[in-house]
Amino acid sequence: MTRVLYELAAADPERRFSPFCWRIRLALEHKGLAFEDRPWRFTDTAALAFSGSDKVPVLVEDNRPIAESSVIAAHLEAAHPDRPSLFGGQAGAALTRFHVAWTDGVLHPALVPLLLLDIHRHLAEPDQAYFRTSREARFGKTLEAVCPDPEAQLVAFRRTLSPVRAVLRAQSYLGGDAPLYADHAVMGAFLWARGVSALALLEPDDPVEGWRRRMLERLGEGSRALTSG
Amino acid sequence: MTRVLYELAAADPERRFSPFCWRIRLALEHKGLAFEDRPWRFTDTAALAFSGSDKVPVLVEDNRPIAESSVIAAHLEAAHPDRPSLFGGQAGAALTRFHVAWTDGVLHPALVPLLLLDIHRHLAEPDQAYFRTSREARFGKTLEAVCPDPEAQLVAFRRTLSPVRAVLRAQSYLGGDAPLYADHAVMGAFLWARGVSALALLEPDDPVEGWRRRMLERLGEGSRALTSG
Repeated sequence: MTRVLYELAAADPERRFSPFCWRIRLALEHKGLAFEDRPWRFTDTAALAFSGSDKVPVLVEDNRPIAESSVIAAHLEAAHPDRPSLFGGQAGAALTRFHVAWTDGVLHPALVPLLLLDIHRHLAEPDQAYFRTSREARFGKTLEAVCPDPEAQLVAFRRTLSPVRAVLRAQSYLGGDAPLYADHAVMGAFLWARGVSALALLEPDDPVEGWRRRMLERLGEGSRALTSG
Repeated sequence: MTRVLYELAAADPERRFSPFCWRIRLALEHKGLAFEDRPWRFTDTAALAFSGSDKVPVLVEDNRPIAESSVIAAHLEAAHPDRPSLFGGQAGAALTRFHVAWTDGVLHPALVPLLLLDIHRHLAEPDQAYFRTSREARFGKTLEAVCPDPEAQLVAFRRTLSPVRAVLRAQSYLGGDAPLYADHAVMGAFLWARGVSALALLEPDDPVEGWRRRMLERLGEGSRALTSG
């Protein structure tokens, strides 16, 4: 079976920064499924046209394209039931929606004022124009106004993590003794940040930082190469 | 097997308002386990001394007292594995910690400025003094200053529910097709509110309101009597 993951990249094709793409990379590693990766850029719409999607991640398994991270994760679980489970069963899959919804709707917005300008800085030139126009329309202000003082936002960002922190005081991973897709969803946010920013998001003694380091240690070879430095 | 649940009550013993006690009531009903309930008040410390706990919920099964809602829920799951599961397995139990942590650390604090004065109003006299002193120490201001304008806080409270709302757009319950303990944890907050406040917390077309009504319809006879009116 051939398997190709299209992932969002910056000007440097090794710089991958989409939290949604990271979820799927972590999910593929979790399942022990080999894959090739293809860096893709915001303005490469032609390169994705075959898939019917205008966004990554897109996973192509035996020429069948699958788009959207939650759809891809559900597909991987259903298509590879003999591999380690991403959800720990049907109840786990239903419960994981909350971790994903919280990450999308609360954690990502808390990172936006810390990261948006850094993302822009790392993009290739045509992508910079696309990114500025689309994001300024979405947020109703300039990128500079969205990120007036990233360091000042750190305190609010760390406070946002309080429910994750409470869980990680009681157990090693959101999934319990080992990571599940819930961990990958939240870790995607930290790998997004790591891809574009040098800011230390967490205090060294934060239980979330201990978890983040354990998650980094579990990365596969290919991912490790993309997150070094 | 005899089973007794000690629950926090207001001056009117039928008025039960502890979100943590509600979780356990819903968990007992979920498991189909019969129980007697004992209303308990903040200043009734002597009545709980036998349990080693100074707080409710306390569940007593065959003379063995168990305190703290999460401990009680884990006990019910382990002691009654033949009954419908509260967590849907080991992964589900680990994942549910996040719903509980979010409810405790984010949802409850968002309700405090809407409810604290109403709670005080409904308490018996010695409890009122205890409640005012302990809560004013905890929040560092008077009850009146914590709740300057409950209606004005509604918008912020509704925004807090956004990740729950996103899940309930995709499925009927946080647990999927039927409630799990994650639902009971969040519903505990709404039953707390219902016990003391007439405020309409949710818009009629909010998916969270649809879920809240489904949860109310599932209440057992005894709980229904406590939430009428």
